[in-house]
Amino acid sequence: MKTSLLAILAFGALAAPALAQDAAIDDATLREDALSYFAAIPLTAEAPEGNIMTRERIDLGAMLFFDPRMSRSGLFSCQSCHNVGLGGVDGLETSIGHGWQQGPRNAPTMLNAIFNIAQFWDGRAPDLAEQAKGPVQAGVEMNNTPDNVVATLQSMSGYVDAFAAAFPGEADAISFDNFARAIEAFEATLITPNSRFDQFLNGQDGALNDQEKRGLAAFMETGCAACHGGVNLGGQEYYPFGLIERPGGSVLPEGDRGRFAVTETADDEYVFRAAPLRNVALTAPYFHSGAVWDLPEAVRVMSSAQLGTELEEGQVEDIVAFLGTLTGEQPEVVHPILPVRGAATPEPEPMYVK
Amino acid sequence: MKTSLLAILAFGALAAPALAQDAAIDDATLREDALSYFAAIPLTAEAPEGNIMTRERIDLGAMLFFDPRMSRSGLFSCQSCHNVGLGGVDGLETSIGHGWQQGPRNAPTMLNAIFNIAQFWDGRAPDLAEQAKGPVQAGVEMNNTPDNVVATLQSMSGYVDAFAAAFPGEADAISFDNFARAIEAFEATLITPNSRFDQFLNGQDGALNDQEKRGLAAFMETGCAACHGGVNLGGQEYYPFGLIERPGGSVLPEGDRGRFAVTETADDEYVFRAAPLRNVALTAPYFHSGAVWDLPEAVRVMSSAQLGTELEEGQVEDIVAFLGTLTGEQPEVVHPILPVRGAATPEPEPMYVK
Repeated sequence: MKTSLLAILAFGALAAPALAQDAAIDDATLREDALSYFAAIPLTAEAPEGNIMTRERIDLGAMLFFDPRMSRSGLFSCQSCHNVGLGGVDGLETSIGHGWQQGPRNAPTMLNAIFNIAQFWDGRAPDLAEQAKGPVQAGVEMNNTPDNVVATLQSMSGYVDAFAAAFPGEADAISFDNFARAIEAFEATLITPNSRFDQFLNGQDGALNDQEKRGLAAFMETGCAACHGGVNLGGQEYYPFGLIERPGGSVLPEGDRGRFAVTETADDEYVFRAAPLRNVALTAPYFHSGAVWDLPEAVRVMSSAQLGTELEEGQVEDIVAFLGTLTGEQPEVVHPILPVRGAATPEPEPMYVK
Repeated sequence: MKTSLLAILAFGALAAPALAQDAAIDDATLREDALSYFAAIPLTAEAPEGNIMTRERIDLGAMLFFDPRMSRSGLFSCQSCHNVGLGGVDGLETSIGHGWQQGPRNAPTMLNAIFNIAQFWDGRAPDLAEQAKGPVQAGVEMNNTPDNVVATLQSMSGYVDAFAAAFPGEADAISFDNFARAIEAFEATLITPNSRFDQFLNGQDGALNDQEKRGLAAFMETGCAACHGGVNLGGQEYYPFGLIERPGGSVLPEGDRGRFAVTETADDEYVFRAAPLRNVALTAPYFHSGAVWDLPEAVRVMSSAQLGTELEEGQVEDIVAFLGTLTGEQPEVVHPILPVRGAATPEPEPMYVK
């Protein structure tokens, strides 16, 4: 692989700028190389392990995802920080939660999260169902309890019926586990197939323009793809942030030691899951700290911190152009109509202090 | 009208309980009386005065309605307090806004708000466009400025294109006025036609059951309909809250003198717009204070405060059953995909203090 690409790049570098437009990288060769790193997003969602993708379960998951009454305050739903209209993020450096507390990390997108090996920046949740249980209980996020979530759901006949339909035959259909399973089923539908990069991988010549192809080639050649591979161009493995050169404290705050908190292994200090790069042009600001708003700057930080390389500005521009081709078809979600509260529904407690 | 209804009610009161089910109120007579107070929601939206309902303008309005970047913090959109999945409200006593400040009044629904004579509890905005300019600037709500809203919109090519399409031929399509007009156009589509009450008004016998018909008759006979009339069963005129008997301070806090703040006329102390009752079964908690969670209790408060009447429990139940027939078809809204930020897009400022 490397030989063919290097030859192409060398040729590109030697060519005059005007010629460079014509002396384009051959689609078939580049595709063959790319397929050794990446895979296209499938057109339909896969069922998560231990879950089934029935219409009833997905629709219930959508209701739960959008229901702010799942939070103690009545203000926050999953959608608050994972906005389906904003590439699955909230566009904040780090999220704001219960009582206007600022959370410690940037909200990652749930779009295509089904393709990650684990969830959260430190991979502490093995799947989306486990992930869904986190923010709802976190004091700085939704500040609720499993018991209160279950009591809230049991108090509304609309949810009683929806859980019975989504989990047929289960005596206690409404449980915190099933709450999480339904959200997982819905989130598994939130994939963004058919980006121009996917079209390219799937064999469509001309899907990427010359600059984007140069960016793709550079993304592989400089080493980005070694960590950012697979369907999601990331999300599969863990690496120390600052492998070669540690970024400044605003980008990598000292207090957040990453995966160390999960494994308590010294090797895991400042280790994070390589960020999935699907739809990255939509998900500013960047890094777990959310400290970088500018995508070219994020590329520069990554290349110096992880590769020990200072990229040429042209390469940065090419790579950013390539990253723009990772924007897929955003999911079309009808906002669910949520069940009406019942007489026993717990009242929201925005001023609750744990 | 009154004669015929009184005759019916007297007959109903004399009949034995078992018989009362059969001795139902005649649909045609009741409908004739009802049509002297109420009107059905039309099946399609009307254009607000000074606005046009093009697909481009409505779609732009939906984007603006759902975009949290219209707030200073990046957290709040119109949807935050006027949730299309929750009957157009937030389900809080009074809304929580910028910096977790608690607002002074309960968020009214925007569903069918196009049929109100004016907007806000005190009617201080003549139309939905003027209303839309309020919360975005209010320090306790979205805490933004018109200039910052316009700068935000101008910074995103997606909005530049959408405003050009929605306001064709205008040199400065992006303005705070057009921002408000687009939101108004979208909100004018948020109507809930075809409730069972509408079906009844439109001539469908049997649309209401006997209890609901008794409730409708009582709603007219006891005087509720005198203030809660028209398409929205309210929203047309202003009345002192506590016309006959002033409710307690939790329901009618002394500090909020209602329309007095608008007109500065002594007669307008504690005067509010009669609340529109469409979808009232979905919009707890009730009153401008949001102090009452229970719909039967809200009916009791109203009858003692406004009518000086203590209703029998059976009448309360009947009226509540009737109010349940005001729940219409909720709007099906596809969550819009929002424009991606640009290099010049102002960053969110959740910690901003005015």
